[in-house]
Amino acid sequence: MSKEKMKGISVKKNEDFSQWYTELIQKAELADIRYNVRGLVPYRAWASITIRKMYRVYEETLERKGHLPLIMPTLIPESNFMLEAKHVEGFSPRVFWVTHGGDKELEERLALRPTSETALYQMYSLWIRSYNDLPFKRYVSGQVFRYEGADTRVFFRAREFHWIESHDVFATEEEAKQQVIEDMETTYEMLQDEFAIPIIFFQRPEWDKFPGAVHTYAADALMDSGKVLQLPSTHLLGQNFSIPFDVKFIDENNDEQYGYITCYGPAISRIYGAMIALLGDDNGLVLPWDLAPIQVVVIPIYRSATKDEVLEKARELETALKKYMKETTIKLDDRDYVSPGEKFNEWELKGVPLRIEIGPKDIQNEQVVVVNRISGNKESVKLVDLKNYTSSYASNFTKELKKKHSIQFEAQVQLAQTVDEVKKAIGENKIVCSGFCSIDLDGESCAELIEKEVKAFVRGKRVDTEKHKFEKCVVCGKPAKETIYIARSY
Amino acid sequence: MSKEKMKGISVKKNEDFSQWYTELIQKAELADIRYNVRGLVPYRAWASITIRKMYRVYEETLERKGHLPLIMPTLIPESNFMLEAKHVEGFSPRVFWVTHGGDKELEERLALRPTSETALYQMYSLWIRSYNDLPFKRYVSGQVFRYEGADTRVFFRAREFHWIESHDVFATEEEAKQQVIEDMETTYEMLQDEFAIPIIFFQRPEWDKFPGAVHTYAADALMDSGKVLQLPSTHLLGQNFSIPFDVKFIDENNDEQYGYITCYGPAISRIYGAMIALLGDDNGLVLPWDLAPIQVVVIPIYRSATKDEVLEKARELETALKKYMKETTIKLDDRDYVSPGEKFNEWELKGVPLRIEIGPKDIQNEQVVVVNRISGNKESVKLVDLKNYTSSYASNFTKELKKKHSIQFEAQVQLAQTVDEVKKAIGENKIVCSGFCSIDLDGESCAELIEKEVKAFVRGKRVDTEKHKFEKCVVCGKPAKETIYIARSY
Repeated sequence: MSKEKMKGISVKKNEDFSQWYTELIQKAELADIRYNVRGLVPYRAWASITIRKMYRVYEETLERKGHLPLIMPTLIPESNFMLEAKHVEGFSPRVFWVTHGGDKELEERLALRPTSETALYQMYSLWIRSYNDLPFKRYVSGQVFRYEGADTRVFFRAREFHWIESHDVFATEEEAKQQVIEDMETTYEMLQDEFAIPIIFFQRPEWDKFPGAVHTYAADALMDSGKVLQLPSTHLLGQNFSIPFDVKFIDENNDEQYGYITCYGPAISRIYGAMIALLGDDNGLVLPWDLAPIQVVVIPIYRSATKDEVLEKARELETALKKYMKETTIKLDDRDYVSPGEKFNEWELKGVPLRIEIGPKDIQNEQVVVVNRISGNKESVKLVDLKNYTSSYASNFTKELKKKHSIQFEAQVQLAQTVDEVKKAIGENKIVCSGFCSIDLDGESCAELIEKEVKAFVRGKRVDTEKHKFEKCVVCGKPAKETIYIARSY
Repeated sequence: MSKEKMKGISVKKNEDFSQWYTELIQKAELADIRYNVRGLVPYRAWASITIRKMYRVYEETLERKGHLPLIMPTLIPESNFMLEAKHVEGFSPRVFWVTHGGDKELEERLALRPTSETALYQMYSLWIRSYNDLPFKRYVSGQVFRYEGADTRVFFRAREFHWIESHDVFATEEEAKQQVIEDMETTYEMLQDEFAIPIIFFQRPEWDKFPGAVHTYAADALMDSGKVLQLPSTHLLGQNFSIPFDVKFIDENNDEQYGYITCYGPAISRIYGAMIALLGDDNGLVLPWDLAPIQVVVIPIYRSATKDEVLEKARELETALKKYMKETTIKLDDRDYVSPGEKFNEWELKGVPLRIEIGPKDIQNEQVVVVNRISGNKESVKLVDLKNYTSSYASNFTKELKKKHSIQFEAQVQLAQTVDEVKKAIGENKIVCSGFCSIDLDGESCAELIEKEVKAFVRGKRVDTEKHKFEKCVVCGKPAKETIYIARSY
């Protein structure tokens, strides 16, 4: 095997996804699992640049929709944490506890925030006074901590991950419900339009809600394999937290009322993981144009006799493109200790959208060779046309990527009337649609049976329109109150 | 006292700085000290927006100078932390320790990072292979934790604060020293040019270095009162960390060498504190143009008969200005439950650089009234001139602010030959310049005497040129190796 090949990923994505993902992360220098705390992973520069871009576009969108930023303490006193019973039950097995400052034992243990409700809402209770202060929409960007089991996977599930959480308070339940719809719209805008990840929203069953929520609506990303991956979820908390945390306001009649709260938590690092897993190919990372740390790489191809001439032309070209496309990051890779072949592999591995090659023959013909990261197609472009070519390439690239990965949800779905049919369809990498007795707690035992027998999960009911209707629950045979979807998940 | 007055700050800044600062933070809604963990403080939206802008301009500058971002774990295993002896000694009394995950005691305690050397350098040791990888320049943006004593003050000194830390590795000591100079230049660019905070750099004495550094160079901000406040510092770590953390590279002769490391830590939240303390006045916050969350506020002044007409004109004006100045945040304050007088006070308190008032008379005269936040001056501007007026106002505002707060360092300095002279000058709010035996550890006892007798601190020797020269140490009378500065500090 040549040196160049060895630097690439040694397996095909569809043959061994897990190995492919692990090698991609290491070889494209995205993260390093050798940090000496299990489940905590440094993100290297290439991933950090993209993750920061994702934060920025998400934050700008939330701000455009009326959210303001807050910077909140990372530590939450144990007593706050205990105020909402379901929240305690859901999170306390997964909390990291700070017990000492220097040599001194702290008077009260402090939780590393697993989510910020119990830090924020006591402050909201102080900040919100009257209906004039509502709606009150804020977001916090930062990391949260969850003491997960051993099944961590870089970006997908970690003991420290990076997210945004928005927490909004309204005077009426109706407005809160409207916010949940806005959050779902935001999710579509971000994930589908910006990050090229196809998703679908489900209302989660009662047993799979956010601890303390009235309802949870979660986006599932549709991965190639028929598996789904939970991405952002938005929660109607109603008055479940405003009562224990005393989030009240004076209404127009001068009466005290409890606010209605919603919260929404896009996990940027997890979405990044989904993006590299979904969009990547056998050669490595593929990234939407705007999110790539470098968008255009120029690679000079020369021997010692032609080096000066080629490098000069390549520099000229780099300068001209930079001047023309000010928002674009263009890199001339003039390292002379790396061969052109290795450079091709390296930048493909790292998902640079456009490669421009220039050698002595190209200079003679007043052209360059351009290589498309999605299709791998090579073509020659005349130097006089290069600016136009590049800017049109830039505006088409993400569209092309979305087109390639758009998944027709309906085409992945298989209807099933019995648990055996569910099993068979899941085995064929399908998402299953079935009748179900109930997504209230009554239905939990049927869901547990599916989990045990089929190793797949009830994702809940579709939030958009549902056209399928069933008579009976696929498990217990009782009348089906709901149409639900079952899928394996990451 | 009128309702409006009560909402303002009740004391003058130069009469009771401490009370002024506390009220400013509360009344301008910058932060809230009522969070129930001592030394941890939520930053409200108004402060968070500015702090995020400060991060962005700082990060862009570091990137322009060749740094790439990293996202690093917040938790550091105790064993890493113990590798560099001076570092342990300096930081371990101030570390918050995580000991439990859920109910389980962790096998090894984890430190909430007080700074990231001991997390980063083990990774650098894996990532840096050859001289081709050098210089290796990275930065981490985020919060750090220090278990400080009771003397915390919002933004200035907290148990969790927000900073950037850059950590750079070089092949030679000379390049590392050059980086320290670049870091100081960056500090001047940011603090003086962007944030309007006058600073001066001192090389800190041996006893006041960063734990583990060869040399520490720190910026002191010159506050009105003759007191100084330590702001960013940059540290030559040399090989002090590269040896225990094994940060090596293969040089051009194929020999293994240890790298030379520098680190630089601008504490954004502390700089924000310095900025509001230094630039603020008796009416509240004053912020540089680019850092204000809202730059222009339009206040309509009407009675019920003129309401529609005035609001319509104000909206027109808002729309026209927004279209003309796309980068500027312009707010029309059309709340009808707040009086114009209260609005004036509120936006002055919050440091909005430009206020535009418009009432029925102004409409008749085709003009508006504009109020300058620095000078408080009011003037009328014709509607046809408003766009030009505003854009020229925008480009002058920060210059004006810098001019107002530029402090001639020399004018604050008083030379002193004896401890009594030092005491007298410090009492007169001067910074003292004296001869000193040594800034090596030999001089520590003389510095301790000054601290005890004068309640002031040896800041070190000037990094730029020093024109004063003394024969003897101001304390012990031995030959003066150095010229140093003594000041009270926040």
